[in-house]
Amino acid sequence: MTDQTLRCPRCGRDGTGTAGCPACRADGVAVNLELPLADLRGRDLASYPGGPWGWPGTVPLPPDADPVALGEGNTPNVRLEDPAGVWVKNEGANPTHTHKDRYMAAAVATARAGGSTTVIAASSGNAGASAAAYAARAGLRCIVVTTSSLPPVIHAQILAAGAVVVGFPDSVARNNVMRRAVDELGWFPLTNYVEPGAGGHPHAVEGLKSVAYELARDLGDSLGAVVVPTSRADLLAGIGRGFKELVAAGLLRAAPRLVAAEPSASAAYVRALAKTGRPAQERTEIPYVSTAAFSIGSDVANWQGLQALWDSGGSAVAVDEADFLAEQRGAAAQGLFLEASSAVAVAAARRLPADGAVVAIGTASGVKDIDLVLRDAPPLPVIGESLTQLRELLQRVSGR
Amino acid sequence: MTDQTLRCPRCGRDGTGTAGCPACRADGVAVNLELPLADLRGRDLASYPGGPWGWPGTVPLPPDADPVALGEGNTPNVRLEDPAGVWVKNEGANPTHTHKDRYMAAAVATARAGGSTTVIAASSGNAGASAAAYAARAGLRCIVVTTSSLPPVIHAQILAAGAVVVGFPDSVARNNVMRRAVDELGWFPLTNYVEPGAGGHPHAVEGLKSVAYELARDLGDSLGAVVVPTSRADLLAGIGRGFKELVAAGLLRAAPRLVAAEPSASAAYVRALAKTGRPAQERTEIPYVSTAAFSIGSDVANWQGLQALWDSGGSAVAVDEADFLAEQRGAAAQGLFLEASSAVAVAAARRLPADGAVVAIGTASGVKDIDLVLRDAPPLPVIGESLTQLRELLQRVSGR
Repeated sequence: MTDQTLRCPRCGRDGTGTAGCPACRADGVAVNLELPLADLRGRDLASYPGGPWGWPGTVPLPPDADPVALGEGNTPNVRLEDPAGVWVKNEGANPTHTHKDRYMAAAVATARAGGSTTVIAASSGNAGASAAAYAARAGLRCIVVTTSSLPPVIHAQILAAGAVVVGFPDSVARNNVMRRAVDELGWFPLTNYVEPGAGGHPHAVEGLKSVAYELARDLGDSLGAVVVPTSRADLLAGIGRGFKELVAAGLLRAAPRLVAAEPSASAAYVRALAKTGRPAQERTEIPYVSTAAFSIGSDVANWQGLQALWDSGGSAVAVDEADFLAEQRGAAAQGLFLEASSAVAVAAARRLPADGAVVAIGTASGVKDIDLVLRDAPPLPVIGESLTQLRELLQRVSGR
Repeated sequence: MTDQTLRCPRCGRDGTGTAGCPACRADGVAVNLELPLADLRGRDLASYPGGPWGWPGTVPLPPDADPVALGEGNTPNVRLEDPAGVWVKNEGANPTHTHKDRYMAAAVATARAGGSTTVIAASSGNAGASAAAYAARAGLRCIVVTTSSLPPVIHAQILAAGAVVVGFPDSVARNNVMRRAVDELGWFPLTNYVEPGAGGHPHAVEGLKSVAYELARDLGDSLGAVVVPTSRADLLAGIGRGFKELVAAGLLRAAPRLVAAEPSASAAYVRALAKTGRPAQERTEIPYVSTAAFSIGSDVANWQGLQALWDSGGSAVAVDEADFLAEQRGAAAQGLFLEASSAVAVAAARRLPADGAVVAIGTASGVKDIDLVLRDAPPLPVIGESLTQLRELLQRVSGR
């Protein structure tokens, strides 16, 4: 499967492998190779059952290969009750509570179809937990490599799935080992491992197209903009590809504007689009600064991310730390507990001009990083049988 | 809404309120009052969109009242790969990652429709987190009362939603305060607060019927048995009611057998069904012993739970602690990380004779109680750039 023809969308050259286009890399631009777009003509959008496997063939597998599935996809759209009326597509409803399940379903199925028995992923977050679960489902061994400590929920998910998780002193050491494991041991790379990263596994990106299919089915031509928390831009690129396929097949009138949502601390796409001309934009590198939105922020404006913005007439929006943390609290106070990275997209969505339905992708559940909530929490108050005490407590906490 | 006519399914008397039937209580049996079954004739099962609000009217609300929704329902069925071929309906895909979201959507909508501004729930688990989220969605104040510490994820979910959580020295004090809050302050009770408990709020139970509708839509007449982790039997009763409605409307040939899955330490339904005759069965009380399956286990065999088992020709199965913890690890090793209570149902499902599709309800995600995984976990190993070290680690952990 990994031998299927891939192509560089920037220079047009054919290529193979997961390290991106070598010619463009030599030209100073990291570009992910990609598969041909799927032909959706003749498909019925209303009956699309959702998820990466809902329309067979849109994630290419050999005829004799089975999908790997845990019930991913078909996540709900929840409208926030506020003047902007932003929709959130809640990807926390996926099996490991993140959109990465769409990616990993496709990645692991590709690995197994190609005969791999061991997969490896570089992650300290959602991708690692998802990789572990899907590898377990497929009966493959899984190694998650990281350079940092893991949020406890992510750690528990990885261990429960029976994966091996191991730390390295820094990303250079981690990437060296991962590259050697891929080259010398034949382990299948579920994530990027080169610097600067070209993007995720090309076959895995195809699993993310299902986000676009579901949005088109659920909201149709009312769609105005889709706001995507962005780092290496796999999700942004996958959604962009999905909409292109839909428009080409006549299933959607036009693709919505795609918007990259970034923490201000590491807003490579905002920085890129502020430059004049593609040659400058596609060579954007900035210092990476870690933020509470631990899943996103990037030091590089990936080419396929820029392409999704260029092609859809989209934009990039940077959100300050205090603003997206307030947005996370605000969405939770409406019952929707999102990870901080997702709140970056909600905050960015509110700033867009109203022109059709605006959807922020809620990339993962807030349970993925509970320290943000619990670190400032008082211990559980224990009171006696006094109604007065209970009322006082309620007034103090709720202010009502 | 709470004035809508309720009826005792045991003695046939009309009643009101949430404390169960007073006549049957005087007779030594705790029985929840219930609403009339909904008439599903003329509905189309194939196009049922899922969730408690998918078929308007099946959870009764006044004509001018709005549902309260966060995208609950439509959870996937995942088949485990083993000889038994048990299906798991993964309720962890709900907004707060538990089936309680179906119940709380209905409960909170009923509260708001009746003019309540403050809701109260007794819980240290999934119900509390779900109550907090749905109250937040509805703009109601929420108080969660408990007698024990909370798993960190549950605690974070409650606090993120802006609910007040408070502890009491014991369940007597907690229930006294909750009863007085309901009687004297008019707070709306989302859960039971009398002992022995008759069951949850009758309107809320209606939200759980959607589990049966979805199973009938997805698996149809192939359904042989549905295995339900059981404590106060709200879920069991709601599923039983849903199947009765489907059969009465001709949308399903026959209701599947319903099976109560319990931890051996507190298996009231197993104990009840071992007795001869309903008068003995319906008066079963046993000592409550806490287990790792913290969401379930009961000291009382609730009447509506027994009724669901009687009416469907079902049974009750007790599972030892070591067995369901092994089952939890086994399902996680297939990529499906369930809470321990759900694993009780999976273990019970495996022991049933094969006669149609067997579905275990996965009541909540394993992320709800990660201490079960992390308490025995080694710290993250940090290694250098040696492929040998990585391979050794992999072999030690995975044994392959």
